[in-house]
Amino acid sequence: MSHNTFGHLFRVTTWGESHGPALGCVIDGCPPGLPLNEADIQIWLDKRRPGQGKFVTQRREPDTVRILSGVFQDARTDGQVTTGTPISLIIDNVDQRSRDYADIASAFRPGHADWAYFAKYGVRDYRGGGRQSARETAARVAAGAVARKVLGPGVMVRGALVQIGPHGVDRTGWDWEETQRNPFWAPDPAIVPVWEQHLETIRKAGSSTGAVVEVEAIGVPAGWGAPIYGKLDAELAAALMSINATKGVEVGAGFAAAALSGEDNADEMRAGPEGPVFLSNHAGGVLGGISTGQSVIARVAFKPTSSILAPRRSINEAGEEIEIRTKGRHDPCVGIRATPVVEAMTACVLADAFLRHRGQTGGGAFAVGRTGRVQ
Amino acid sequence: MSHNTFGHLFRVTTWGESHGPALGCVIDGCPPGLPLNEADIQIWLDKRRPGQGKFVTQRREPDTVRILSGVFQDARTDGQVTTGTPISLIIDNVDQRSRDYADIASAFRPGHADWAYFAKYGVRDYRGGGRQSARETAARVAAGAVARKVLGPGVMVRGALVQIGPHGVDRTGWDWEETQRNPFWAPDPAIVPVWEQHLETIRKAGSSTGAVVEVEAIGVPAGWGAPIYGKLDAELAAALMSINATKGVEVGAGFAAAALSGEDNADEMRAGPEGPVFLSNHAGGVLGGISTGQSVIARVAFKPTSSILAPRRSINEAGEEIEIRTKGRHDPCVGIRATPVVEAMTACVLADAFLRHRGQTGGGAFAVGRTGRVQ
Amino acid sequence: MSHNTFGHLFRVTTWGESHGPALGCVIDGCPPGLPLNEADIQIWLDKRRPGQGKFVTQRREPDTVRILSGVFQDARTDGQVTTGTPISLIIDNVDQRSRDYADIASAFRPGHADWAYFAKYGVRDYRGGGRQSARETAARVAAGAVARKVLGPGVMVRGALVQIGPHGVDRTGWDWEETQRNPFWAPDPAIVPVWEQHLETIRKAGSSTGAVVEVEAIGVPAGWGAPIYGKLDAELAAALMSINATKGVEVGAGFAAAALSGEDNADEMRAGPEGPVFLSNHAGGVLGGISTGQSVIARVAFKPTSSILAPRRSINEAGEEIEIRTKGRHDPCVGIRATPVVEAMTACVLADAFLRHRGQTGGGAFAVGRTGRVQ
Amino acid sequence: MSHNTFGHLFRVTTWGESHGPALGCVIDGCPPGLPLNEADIQIWLDKRRPGQGKFVTQRREPDTVRILSGVFQDARTDGQVTTGTPISLIIDNVDQRSRDYADIASAFRPGHADWAYFAKYGVRDYRGGGRQSARETAARVAAGAVARKVLGPGVMVRGALVQIGPHGVDRTGWDWEETQRNPFWAPDPAIVPVWEQHLETIRKAGSSTGAVVEVEAIGVPAGWGAPIYGKLDAELAAALMSINATKGVEVGAGFAAAALSGEDNADEMRAGPEGPVFLSNHAGGVLGGISTGQSVIARVAFKPTSSILAPRRSINEAGEEIEIRTKGRHDPCVGIRATPVVEAMTACVLADAFLRHRGQTGGGAFAVGRTGRVQ
Repeated sequence: MSHNTFGHLFRVTTWGESHGPALGCVIDGCPPGLPLNEADIQIWLDKRRPGQGKFVTQRREPDTVRILSGVFQDARTDGQVTTGTPISLIIDNVDQRSRDYADIASAFRPGHADWAYFAKYGVRDYRGGGRQSARETAARVAAGAVARKVLGPGVMVRGALVQIGPHGVDRTGWDWEETQRNPFWAPDPAIVPVWEQHLETIRKAGSSTGAVVEVEAIGVPAGWGAPIYGKLDAELAAALMSINATKGVEVGAGFAAAALSGEDNADEMRAGPEGPVFLSNHAGGVLGGISTGQSVIARVAFKPTSSILAPRRSINEAGEEIEIRTKGRHDPCVGIRATPVVEAMTACVLADAFLRHRGQTGGGAFAVGRTGRVQ
Repeated sequence: MSHNTFGHLFRVTTWGESHGPALGCVIDGCPPGLPLNEADIQIWLDKRRPGQGKFVTQRREPDTVRILSGVFQDARTDGQVTTGTPISLIIDNVDQRSRDYADIASAFRPGHADWAYFAKYGVRDYRGGGRQSARETAARVAAGAVARKVLGPGVMVRGALVQIGPHGVDRTGWDWEETQRNPFWAPDPAIVPVWEQHLETIRKAGSSTGAVVEVEAIGVPAGWGAPIYGKLDAELAAALMSINATKGVEVGAGFAAAALSGEDNADEMRAGPEGPVFLSNHAGGVLGGISTGQSVIARVAFKPTSSILAPRRSINEAGEEIEIRTKGRHDPCVGIRATPVVEAMTACVLADAFLRHRGQTGGGAFAVGRTGRVQ
Repeated sequence: MSHNTFGHLFRVTTWGESHGPALGCVIDGCPPGLPLNEADIQIWLDKRRPGQGKFVTQRREPDTVRILSGVFQDARTDGQVTTGTPISLIIDNVDQRSRDYADIASAFRPGHADWAYFAKYGVRDYRGGGRQSARETAARVAAGAVARKVLGPGVMVRGALVQIGPHGVDRTGWDWEETQRNPFWAPDPAIVPVWEQHLETIRKAGSSTGAVVEVEAIGVPAGWGAPIYGKLDAELAAALMSINATKGVEVGAGFAAAALSGEDNADEMRAGPEGPVFLSNHAGGVLGGISTGQSVIARVAFKPTSSILAPRRSINEAGEEIEIRTKGRHDPCVGIRATPVVEAMTACVLADAFLRHRGQTGGGAFAVGRTGRVQ
Repeated sequence: MSHNTFGHLFRVTTWGESHGPALGCVIDGCPPGLPLNEADIQIWLDKRRPGQGKFVTQRREPDTVRILSGVFQDARTDGQVTTGTPISLIIDNVDQRSRDYADIASAFRPGHADWAYFAKYGVRDYRGGGRQSARETAARVAAGAVARKVLGPGVMVRGALVQIGPHGVDRTGWDWEETQRNPFWAPDPAIVPVWEQHLETIRKAGSSTGAVVEVEAIGVPAGWGAPIYGKLDAELAAALMSINATKGVEVGAGFAAAALSGEDNADEMRAGPEGPVFLSNHAGGVLGGISTGQSVIARVAFKPTSSILAPRRSINEAGEEIEIRTKGRHDPCVGIRATPVVEAMTACVLADAFLRHRGQTGGGAFAVGRTGRVQ
C-alpha cells in the first residue's frame, strides 16, 4: 500500500475531498470480460449512503456513481463488460455545507487528524475534514463492487456489526439474514433496541461511541496469499486499518488466541473430498498467511467519532489554547456505516490475492490424495 | 508489502529456510554515511537468539551475522559506514536436525501452515517448517538494527511482553527497566513467577500458550505516515501481522476504543512550545494515519505455538486421517522471543515513513504559531 | 512502472479511452504548498492540442482540464496550492465521431495494437483506438505540468523535433527560440519547408511518416537517480518508450556511442566552484544512472502513424483475410504532437527522482573540496 | 523498477560490490515446482565469466553460484525443484586486487560514475567501481537462468553482438549457430577478424570501444505486456538501459522507423491457424506494449569502457585538477561480455510479463475465428 493506492495486480487509487466537486477511484488491473454496469456498483454504494436513519449523518448525498472508462459494450458482447483497462469511477459531491466548518478552519479537533495533517502538510482542506473525511470510503465501496465481480459468485463477503459502545451481540443467536433487516447490520435482533437506546443517549449528550465490525468471506479456496510480507492476513490488516477511525484488527480468534492453549487453538482436521475438513476455525481461515479453504474471518475496532458537540480542550494554528465543540453533520457512531466499507476492503484484498496467486502458480490448489493442481 | 519484501524507500527483502544453509536479508534504500558494523546488528540478534532459557527452543544457533555489501571503510571515513547501496546480511544455520521432521514430511500439523503451503505450492521444505519457520524473524531483527541507525538516537523503539496465556501484567507497576532484567521482557517483576508457573504447566502438558507484546516508539515527530493507504498505522498493522503466529494488532486504545465515549477517546490538547501537549494517548500516537508527536503504541496478539507434543487429529498428503504429535525443538510460547521482532518491524516501518515523509515534504513538521516547516 | 501507473513518490495514474466520456489522471505524492491552478496545466495542454494545423489530426478537442481534488485555497494561503493529497485531473472528450470506426470494429489495422489488444483481452473499445489512442497522452501532459511545479524554476525541460521521415535538422544552426515559432518544434527554421514538403507528399499519398524528438533538462543537480534498477536513464527510457508509437530511446551520444573511442566518449572534467565542469556531454548528463549536473539529454524515435488511408493486407476477428484502409482523423506524423509529451514524461521522471533522492539522502549533493552535503 | 529490485511478480533484487566478499541476488515470486539446480544457473554464468580471452578483463573469477534458499529435494520429488519461496543466490568474489585502485580512491574517472556516486552518497567503495562495477551483472545472469526456467522450453532468448566500434555485421549472412563458435557472439564469421583487428588496435592504444548487442526472443505468445506504463517494450527498455554502459535501446525497426513510410512500417498480416501471420517485423514483436506473437527483437548500444589507460583530464574530491590513467583489469569493450546480460534481462522481463498476464487474464490468448481464450 502506497499513499493513495492499494493492491498489486488489482490496484485501487482513490482521490477526492469531502467538500470538493467530486471523489472517485481508478481501478487498474481488473480482468477483462466481466459484466459491469453502474447499477452493479450503485447497489453497494446505496448501503453505505448517508442520510438513511436517525443514527447516521444527515448529509444528503445520493452518491451516484458514473463509470468513465474501462468498460465497453457493442453488438458483439452480451452487455457491457470490463476491457482490462483502468476503470475510472466518479461520485459527485452535492450536499456540501462548507460554512459549517469555518470554526475549525484553524483549530484542531481532539481525536481528529486536523493537527496531524497540519503538521505534515502545513495546509489542509478543513471543510468536512477534506481528505480525512470518511466520505473517501465511498470510493472504497465502489471499488469493492468491482472486486466482487472479480471474485465471482463463488466467494461471498459479508459483514455484521457485533458491538456498539460496550454492548456486544450474543453470538449464539447469530443470523446473517438479520443483518439485512435492521439499520445496524446486527446479526441478532435482540441487540437492536439496546443499541438504539445507547445511541439515543449518546446523541443527546453530544457524544459519540465506538463499534466493532466482523467480516466473513465464504468460499475462498486454499492457496491465496503470498508469504512472508504479502500474507493474506497482513494485507487484510493493512486494508482494514486504513479505514477511517480504526484502532484494531484481528483475524480468527484474534486477541483471544493469546489465552488459548495450543490444543484448543490448533484447528483439527478430518479428511474431506479434496482437502481437510476443519473441526474449528480459530485461525480465521488463514495459516502462514495463506488461505486454508475455511472462511476468512476478521474483526475491526472503530473508535468513537471525534467530531462531537461536547466541548473539549484544544489548541489552534496560532498556538492558542481553546475549547472546541464540533458542529456540522456527523455520524455519532462511524462504525455503523463502516460495515459496507469493511466488506469492500476485504473483497479488494481477496481479488488481489486471487490474481497474484493465479499469476505465480497458475491458480487453483493442490488437493490431497492426488497429483497436481485442481482448478 | 509484496511477497518477501516490505517497505517503500527503506525496503527489506528476506530469504531463507529453517534448515537450509543460511538465511538473510537485503536492505535497500538505506541512507548513506551511517556508521554500521556487524556488532551493531549482533546486539539485537542476541536478544532474539534461541537456546537462552528453559522456556524457549533448545536449538543452538549462534545467529552470527555477516555484512556482505553496502558498507565501506577507508582512511577518509571515521569507521565503517553505509554507502547507500544494498546491505546484504547473512546468518548461517548451524544446528539443523532435519531428522526430527521426518514424521511430518507428508503430514499437516493442525494450526500450522503445512496444509496451506502444500495447497498453494504443492511442494514444501518441511524441515523445521522451511520458510514458515520463525527462524525467518532473525532476518527481520537484523534489518531492524539498521532501521534504528536510520532513525537515529532521537527515536527509541522498545517492547514488552504484557500477557502470557490468560495472565496479563499489572500496568500500574510498569517499569521499562524491568524488561531488561527478566527473560520475558516483562515490565512488572510480579508477573514473572506467575508466567514461570504457567509455562512449566504448559511444558509438562506438551502444550503451548499465546501472548501479547506491546511496543512503544518514543520521539517520533509529528508528520510521518502517508494517507490514505500508506497510513502509518496501516503499514504498522501489516508489518506486525506478518510476524509468525500473530492474530491481531491494535494501536493506542485498540479494541477497547470501541467501548469509549467520544469525550474520553478524544485526547485533549494544551499548548506546548511547538505543538500540542496531549493530556492522554488513546490514539497511540497516530491520527488519520499520520504521527502526532506522541509515542506510537501498538499491541500484537500471538497464538499458541502450533507444534505441540499433545496429540491432535489431522490428515496427510495422501488424504488419510491421522493423529499427530510434533516432536522437535519448539518454543512453548512463541510470543516470548517475538518481542525483539515486534520492535524490529516497528523500527523498519518508522524508518520507511521517515524517508518517505522527507521525500514528499522535505522533512520536519509545521509548528503552531509560526510560518513554515521546522526541521 | 505498473499497468497504468508510473513513478514511485511522484506517482501518476492515467485512465480513459479515446471515445469515452472523458480521460484523466491522478497524481499522488505531490509535495504540499505548491501554487497550482488549472491555467498552469492548460498552458501545456494547449501545446499538445489537436486541430491546430494542417499536419495534425482535425479532431477538435479543447482539452480543457479541471482539477477535482488535491488543491485548496483559503484566506490564509496566497492563492490555490497543492495539499499533498491526490490531484485528480479530468479532460472531457467532446468531438468523438465513433461512426468513423465501424469498419475496424472487428478488423486489425497493421502496425496498430488492435490485434494485440484483442489477443490479450478478447474485447476492446475499437472507437478511435480506445485505450491505445494517443489521446491518452493528454493526461501525461497534464501530469507533466504538475511535475514542473515540483521541479521549480531551477529545472527547465524543453523539447525539439529533430527529424521527420528521413530529414534531420542541421544541428549547427540550433536555436531553442525557434522551437516556439513554428508548428513543428523545429530548432532550425531551414528545415521547416523541407518538412512541410515531405508531409504534403505523405498526406497526398494517404501515407504517414516517423520522427525523432530530442529533450533536454537543464538545471538538474548532481545526485538524482537510484542505481541499479531505478537508474535515472532507465526510468527515463521506460517513461519515453511507453509513449505511443515509440520504437527507440537513447541518452547522450546514444547509439553513436558504440562507434566512439574511449577517449572521445569520456567527458573530461575541469574544476568548477562546487564540482566538475565538463568539456563535453556524451553521457547526456547521466553516469551510473545518477545525474552529473550536466543537462540531461535524450532522444525518442517515433514510427509512422499506423492508421493510414493506403490499403494494407490484414485479417479480422473471424480470421478472414482482408484489405484495410483506415479512415478517420489521424496525425500523419504522430511525432509532431509528441514533443510536449516527451517533455512531460521527462519532467515526471525528474520530479520523482528528486523526491526519491531527497527521501534517501536528505537532498542536495556533496561538493568537491568540502565536507558534507550542499543543499 | 526501484533501487536494486526489478520486476513485479517475478522480482529480482541484486546486491554486492566488485571487491566485497560476494555478490548475489534474491529472486522472489518464482513459480513452484520448476526443476532447478546450480548447474542450470552455472551454465549461463560461464558464458559471461571474465578471463576467457585476450579481449576481456584478465580478472580470474570462477563465478561459482550457490543456491541458498527456495529449492527443495526429497524422496517425493523428481530432483530438486523451486518451492515458490525466495531463491537466494550467492557468488563469491575471489580475485580482488584492491591495491589497483588506490590511485582513484579520491579521483573521478571521466565517463565513469565515480563523480555521480560521490555527489549523491558522499562515500563510495572505489575498489573496482564498487557497486557501479559490471560485476553486478553476474547476478543478473544468474536471475536470467531462473527466468528461462519460468519461460520454459517454448520461449528461447538469444543474443548476438552486431557492432563493435564502427564495424557492424553484414546481416545477410546471419547465422545464429555462429554466435556459439566465436568469442564475440558474432552471427557472421566474416566480421570476426575485423573485430579482432580493431580490438588489438584499441588495446595497444590504451583505449576502448563501444558495441551494439541484439537480442531476440522466439516463441513469445501474443498477449504479454500491460499497457500503458507497464508496456512490454517499456519494461524491456528500462531493464536493458539499466545494464552498465548502455546509452540506447531500440525495439524492432527502432530509430530507423523514423524514416519509414507508414506502408512500409505497418507489418501486413495474413491468416494463420490461430492468428495473424506477419509478412514483416518492423514492430519487433510488440504493438501497443503487448506482444503480438512475433519474435521480440531489441538492440542495445554500449558506450566504450570508461576505465582506460590513455590519460584524461579530470578532478579529484579535493577539487584539484588532475590527469588520470586507469590501471587495473578492464574489458576494452564491455559490450562483448554484455551479450549474456542482455539475454538475461530480456528473459527476466518476459518471465514477469508472463506471470502478470496470467494473473490478470488467466493466461493464454484469444485466437481469431473462435470464442474464448486458447491456453
